[in-house]
Amino acid sequence: MTAPQKQWILNAFAMHTPGHLNPGAWKSPVDQGYRYKDIKFWVDLAKKLEDAKFHAIFFADVLGGYDVYGGPKNLVPTLKAAAQLPVNDPLYAVSAMAAATENIAFGVTASTTYDKPYLHARRFSTVDHLSGGRVGWNIVTSYLDSAARNLDLETQIPHDERYLIADEFLEVSYKLWNGSWRDDAVVKTNGIFTDPDGVREINHKGKYFNVPGPHISEPSLQRTPLLFQAGTSTAGKKFAAKHAEVVFVGGLDPVLVRKSVDDLRKQVAEYGRDPRSIKIIASFSVIIGATDEEAEQKEKELLKYADLDGALALFGGWTGYDLATYADDEDFRFVKEAAIQSFVTHWSKYVPGSEGKVWNKRTIAERISIGGLGGAAIGGPEKVADELARWAEIADLDGFNLSYTTVPGSFDDIIKYLLPELRKRGLFWDDYAVPGGTARENFYGIKGQSYLPDDHPGSKYLWKAGEEQPDLNSADNISK
Amino acid sequence: MTAPQKQWILNAFAMHTPGHLNPGAWKSPVDQGYRYKDIKFWVDLAKKLEDAKFHAIFFADVLGGYDVYGGPKNLVPTLKAAAQLPVNDPLYAVSAMAAATENIAFGVTASTTYDKPYLHARRFSTVDHLSGGRVGWNIVTSYLDSAARNLDLETQIPHDERYLIADEFLEVSYKLWNGSWRDDAVVKTNGIFTDPDGVREINHKGKYFNVPGPHISEPSLQRTPLLFQAGTSTAGKKFAAKHAEVVFVGGLDPVLVRKSVDDLRKQVAEYGRDPRSIKIIASFSVIIGATDEEAEQKEKELLKYADLDGALALFGGWTGYDLATYADDEDFRFVKEAAIQSFVTHWSKYVPGSEGKVWNKRTIAERISIGGLGGAAIGGPEKVADELARWAEIADLDGFNLSYTTVPGSFDDIIKYLLPELRKRGLFWDDYAVPGGTARENFYGIKGQSYLPDDHPGSKYLWKAGEEQPDLNSADNISK
Repeated sequence: MTAPQKQWILNAFAMHTPGHLNPGAWKSPVDQGYRYKDIKFWVDLAKKLEDAKFHAIFFADVLGGYDVYGGPKNLVPTLKAAAQLPVNDPLYAVSAMAAATENIAFGVTASTTYDKPYLHARRFSTVDHLSGGRVGWNIVTSYLDSAARNLDLETQIPHDERYLIADEFLEVSYKLWNGSWRDDAVVKTNGIFTDPDGVREINHKGKYFNVPGPHISEPSLQRTPLLFQAGTSTAGKKFAAKHAEVVFVGGLDPVLVRKSVDDLRKQVAEYGRDPRSIKIIASFSVIIGATDEEAEQKEKELLKYADLDGALALFGGWTGYDLATYADDEDFRFVKEAAIQSFVTHWSKYVPGSEGKVWNKRTIAERISIGGLGGAAIGGPEKVADELARWAEIADLDGFNLSYTTVPGSFDDIIKYLLPELRKRGLFWDDYAVPGGTARENFYGIKGQSYLPDDHPGSKYLWKAGEEQPDLNSADNISK
Repeated sequence: MTAPQKQWILNAFAMHTPGHLNPGAWKSPVDQGYRYKDIKFWVDLAKKLEDAKFHAIFFADVLGGYDVYGGPKNLVPTLKAAAQLPVNDPLYAVSAMAAATENIAFGVTASTTYDKPYLHARRFSTVDHLSGGRVGWNIVTSYLDSAARNLDLETQIPHDERYLIADEFLEVSYKLWNGSWRDDAVVKTNGIFTDPDGVREINHKGKYFNVPGPHISEPSLQRTPLLFQAGTSTAGKKFAAKHAEVVFVGGLDPVLVRKSVDDLRKQVAEYGRDPRSIKIIASFSVIIGATDEEAEQKEKELLKYADLDGALALFGGWTGYDLATYADDEDFRFVKEAAIQSFVTHWSKYVPGSEGKVWNKRTIAERISIGGLGGAAIGGPEKVADELARWAEIADLDGFNLSYTTVPGSFDDIIKYLLPELRKRGLFWDDYAVPGGTARENFYGIKGQSYLPDDHPGSKYLWKAGEEQPDLNSADNISK
């Protein structure tokens, strides 16, 4: 099942924070991450990325600080490094970026754990309207105790229950977005703005939510935003297989990632969905220059600015492991804590040039400071393109989520050095598949594919023009 | 205590819906209200209003449909007329409007009843950052059962308890916005992005909310958005007196409104605040032309498009009274239902030319369809300016919230006919008091007044540069 040569999906991976996956990079004279509060920064970035034909800007988000390292509840290294704190809400800059562009999509992270589906559905309908159908939703269930504590919970809702809530949250959302208004409900003729026969309550009564409806936004171009997800747990993957249209994967070895990808596509098929229709994308940090040497020089320069404690704070938040309890010279290849050792032996095995390398706090932090826990490709155009192509083929990927080490510098480099090489190889498009189209049209490359595909479980609720309203409480209810 | 001649605050009153206070106007060939989904519509409107030096665009919002008329739960007339349904979330278009302007402020309605203060605080901090300190928050507690039912409540929380929740919600918000980060916490020097000694938890433990903090957004230019409120009940006025900086009032007789204004300013003083610092603004519908005759002609034209059932649906939602239970020829001046009779005898007394007028469903609906329940001024420049000036003087007002009967037509007319007349009389500024300034600087007309005034209860939490952190749990806690 070798994937045919195909053109990749490329997203720019960003966050409304001074330091996303590059703690300390704010000290670099070229980094402008601190301008995350400035709407002109985002508008300029969106225009630049659209000129280069990026599919989307994809925005991560967290609802609390990383407080595990040297903790509990220790935000000192996180604040010093601006390691994803402060962090603003990513959904509010979209309208400004959309007003200045016509094609690029906006993937925005939002949690199902702390919001109400009725209000959330209107938020995304609003932004889908304002962006001309260019919004995507990265569905997360949140994983930080620091967020839960601020949202009226003593501690987090257990992991698997968060996915049950998310599943019902999505069901309510589909009913509101797809089933509450008929396509042609807004008629604007014969003195009638909206045909009342084209609007209905959804009368959702579930375990976690009771939502009679109707949705109070009229249908937007996509109705349902393009659905992103990144679950890696058993529950997370099951959720992704059912709901997601674009899935993020990460890792250091494409062979291992392939196992996960195959498993995911298999589960997708089990839900009756086309396993090739789901887009699987790996997060990657790219440091690229005109030559391999130039890129290596850039990496060295970046490492000068790395905030090592900030990197370990990110590690603590992501994994729950507090490396502050270890000595500075501890070699984590040999620690007793199996999970940490497993991380590190994984790096030893798969990070290029790591054989025999000592993984202590410093070297772990350096690794994290240039792109987080995911893959990294460092070199000139050919080397980076080779590495991405190797990944795409071995792991059966549909594209990449490219993070920055400095912003907008990393994207300038990618545009200057990587994209021409990819285009030479036929791996990246010259223009949007559907210029002026919706996010879904451009991600699927199919004009007219603005709604969920027919085989997606959310599409069964779709109330089409001229048709009877679908039964929203049918026995094959998707939550069953 | 006659108010001295002062320059007014003028806001444009809008809503993300095809029909705000003008049900049926979408049928007019000049109305563009249906473009509420189009970001270019809002950007163009913001630029136009900024060119004319409007203080702000002020956005109403509701979280459910008006379903009382012919009800219960009857949305038929509401949908047909597009009477504030469909309705999108008003906070998402702000960044686009802000990116295209430099001075105009954005007042946005949001409810304290269904959101979490921790998330809400970040939403407004984000938009205050992105707009360069130009956001205001119209604090509402929501009043529609149709919203409550969709937000996990069988029915609404009782009115006065909603204000208790709102009061604590504000307290949490002040602590997050003003007290969690020191002014100069973000240092960006010596390898430190944020000084951890400049960030603190707020550890709020209250009756309705437990929020340890810290706030995850750094301080925005205003920290606290400019606070709008429109409470008219006893609980609502008490809340306004304590928290609001700009208060909306409405009515048909400036003498009666003056009583309410005097009472409000008195209560403001009882909270230790300067009673003149609170800006009191009346909502007004203006239909204006080159001459009185032209304006009257416009009104006649508008009435041709009025959707009378839609107007009665608005009336039902606002008041709770279902006029559908009465015959078409019922003269409401003589009905038994005291509250309805009171409305109507009020109109008979104060709406110009109403003496002896029959108030039946049609005439009530016509009245509502050209601007809702509030004041209306119809005429040429002198007549309208006279009427507004009479109101400002008698009711001791600081300005007006001007609604539209068609959009952007009403604002075009106001800009063309009304503003020159007001400027001639010295009643409206030639330019923003603080060009490029924050909403609060321009509303108060004081350069440097970006934070809450010192006598505002939320300012006690302000953590200034170089100062010790304020005691957030002091005995004179504002909720006590």
